[in-house]
Amino acid sequence: MSSIFSKIVTGEIPAYKVAEDEHHLAFLDISPLAKGHLLVIPKKETDYIFDISLDDFSALWCFAQIVAKAMDKVFDCERIGVAVIGLEVPHAHIHLVPLEKGVANINFEEPKLKFTPEEFKTIAQKIRSEV
Amino acid sequence: MSSIFSKIVTGEIPAYKVAEDEHHLAFLDISPLAKGHLLVIPKKETDYIFDISLDDFSALWCFAQIVAKAMDKVFDCERIGVAVIGLEVPHAHIHLVPLEKGVANINFEEPKLKFTPEEFKTIAQKIRSEV
Repeated sequence: MSSIFSKIVTGEIPAYKVAEDEHHLAFLDISPLAKGHLLVIPKKETDYIFDISLDDFSALWCFAQIVAKAMDKVFDCERIGVAVIGLEVPHAHIHLVPLEKGVANINFEEPKLKFTPEEFKTIAQKIRSEV
Repeated sequence: MSSIFSKIVTGEIPAYKVAEDEHHLAFLDISPLAKGHLLVIPKKETDYIFDISLDDFSALWCFAQIVAKAMDKVFDCERIGVAVIGLEVPHAHIHLVPLEKGVANINFEEPKLKFTPEEFKTIAQKIRSEV
């Protein structure tokens, strides 16, 4: 069975897409810890990120770097933090999270933010315009 | 002024080293969130990880993958989690943290574990033997 992320790749499930190339996709996390919190995934489904082949692993992180640099231009944040936990969805994904000044943590137990579809669209569009 | 991590690279400050090549070093975090929690750094000092050149950034993550695969062999954990926050020391570093079963978070506000120098040495040795 396809992961929900594979269904986002095929368009079966909608998402606020931010960047895409042949092998990778970035889209907003709909339960974000911060404004602009997004996920970077390989289109090919692999559960555990460290099981990805060296070349594909390298390409995934390079794609994530491009997206993070775009996020840096959009958000008034200290920097972009990175987390890979991967126990929620069995499809490797990198969390990129704008870190507010003074917040040196990415704690998934914190309450998630809520945005309207219009707000999500605007956030995605802003990042997309800088990629 | 050199970062404390640069001083670990030169040997000026001791560390429980786990893996090393010409451009990268992995060593145990001495305030670990979990047994085996370690840091992967580029030897060349750059504050913000996303400011590292694409080639060096790619090489850093490939080195981290090798270390993570070794950690997977040593620890009875669900998987190896990844975090990059980077506000503590101005020298890019990747946290690799063995995640216990059921713990889908890397929370730096959690109490840190304490080990004796002998215990740290043993942990480092175990990982080193699998790299």
